[in-house]
Amino acid sequence: MSVIYNRVALIGLGLIASSMFWAIKRAGLANEVTGFSRSAKTRDTAREIGLCDRVCNNLTDAVIDADLIVLCVPVGAMEDVAMQIAPGLKSGATVSDVGSVKRAVIDAVAPHLPDDVHFIPAHPLAGTEQSGPTSGFAELFDNRWCLLVPLEDTDPAQVDRLADFWHGLGSNVECMEPDHHDLVLAVTSHTPHLIAYTMVGVADDLRRVTDSEVVKYSAAGFRDFTRIAASDPTMWRDVFLNNKDATLEILGRFTEELFALQRAIRKGDGKELHDYFTRTRAIRRGIIEAGQDTDAPNFGRGPKK
Amino acid sequence: MSVIYNRVALIGLGLIASSMFWAIKRAGLANEVTGFSRSAKTRDTAREIGLCDRVCNNLTDAVIDADLIVLCVPVGAMEDVAMQIAPGLKSGATVSDVGSVKRAVIDAVAPHLPDDVHFIPAHPLAGTEQSGPTSGFAELFDNRWCLLVPLEDTDPAQVDRLADFWHGLGSNVECMEPDHHDLVLAVTSHTPHLIAYTMVGVADDLRRVTDSEVVKYSAAGFRDFTRIAASDPTMWRDVFLNNKDATLEILGRFTEELFALQRAIRKGDGKELHDYFTRTRAIRRGIIEAGQDTDAPNFGRGPKK
Repeated sequence: MSVIYNRVALIGLGLIASSMFWAIKRAGLANEVTGFSRSAKTRDTAREIGLCDRVCNNLTDAVIDADLIVLCVPVGAMEDVAMQIAPGLKSGATVSDVGSVKRAVIDAVAPHLPDDVHFIPAHPLAGTEQSGPTSGFAELFDNRWCLLVPLEDTDPAQVDRLADFWHGLGSNVECMEPDHHDLVLAVTSHTPHLIAYTMVGVADDLRRVTDSEVVKYSAAGFRDFTRIAASDPTMWRDVFLNNKDATLEILGRFTEELFALQRAIRKGDGKELHDYFTRTRAIRRGIIEAGQDTDAPNFGRGPKK
Repeated sequence: MSVIYNRVALIGLGLIASSMFWAIKRAGLANEVTGFSRSAKTRDTAREIGLCDRVCNNLTDAVIDADLIVLCVPVGAMEDVAMQIAPGLKSGATVSDVGSVKRAVIDAVAPHLPDDVHFIPAHPLAGTEQSGPTSGFAELFDNRWCLLVPLEDTDPAQVDRLADFWHGLGSNVECMEPDHHDLVLAVTSHTPHLIAYTMVGVADDLRRVTDSEVVKYSAAGFRDFTRIAASDPTMWRDVFLNNKDATLEILGRFTEELFALQRAIRKGDGKELHDYFTRTRAIRRGIIEAGQDTDAPNFGRGPKK
């Protein structure tokens, strides 16, 4: 792989940025990577573990002369960062981000950027329940999707260049329109996360079942929810506040379906339940075939046969 | 490990029974294991792969002279099986089961068994999304819990004996009262499964997001739901029909909480969301510390650092 951007600036040094750094180094996609975090503690940690070629103490130093600037901060912090970096951006640079919602990020960031930089929003669909600068690893994006959400008037050559960069990080790349992105993610990510958070909250609230019972017997299904519900609270707060309409729409459909199944349970309608549960199996098969999960039993937690 | 029951009969040859067989052999817990499945195809498969020392073509042959008979059929099939095996049971034998609900199984099975056999319901909290006779493996129960739900008048020596047997299969063992069992499992297993089935069903129904999009972008959270929702439909239909009250109670609490979070999203109440998401992280830590899951990112799907 050859260098795609001479200098890359990573703003925010959490799971995604730290994984990007290791993946950039793995593939040699940049000559220099600078990094900035608002937190002095995070900057210290980054320096200790060699995260970024140069960790800067302020935003201006981090973005100076950068060819690609990637905003890796929670969605709610994007606008502030955009305003602060705007004056220091090099003409012809590309600004991108990794936020989980796209319409709100476009509305927050685009108005603040000068006309001579390219703004190409992006969203790598990859993550773990871990967060912070020590949680990254080079392979995070391998075989995962990165969605690019370019605005209409963006130079196609610069979109291709950013796509090459994400290919180099290990991802498959596709372009998508912002509102459609937000709806798709409301289905595949945002609503599932909210539901998982809710279920874990219910378990925690229930006085008649002790916390220790919930923890001990979690392997019966519940623990998969707790993994999702252990993700970064600030990031997820911002996702829901900024993808409100799509999340509320999918939640509405979800409760409608849940009430139908609840009614089938109350009425003892075994056929309806069986039909429903049979239909959902096919989707799982599709996901295995698409290479987006392992078919090892129990996520490969158990020993191999 | 030494022999605990001279002859064990496994009725139903799916994931749990086949795992029990391999675990019995691993530890030498029985001199002979017989097996029966209603399906001729399953019996053929079992014979091909050496599952059970002897696969019988009828229930009577399978239970004759058995010291432990374990009903490994869906909860809704337990009563029929109990009626059919009752006349052939040896005096002093123990009958147990592996059903995910306990009150309904007790009501269905206990009345049909002769007074001179011990009936000790049990529930191993272990499983994968796979099913059928080829899905079992000896390590399934290792470090998982098996809950014994003995009736009040059961000989404690026979409960201890069955506990020794489950210890030999690799499990931790605890006793629990049937209604409490059904409530705990409604929280840790039954409701999470219903919710996962529902979310997968919603995704499948939504015309504006294609199936291929759902499948491609599943790694953003949704795929963890699909794993749960790929479990055996017959087993789960029977769980919900037979743990109706506890499941409906927990579902009621779940929708109440979900509506509160939905309202927080609609109102843009970031503090409430952040507080809620922070609280749920602690439960995850408890589960890791209790050894019921791995803290490897992404369930260990990703490469190790």
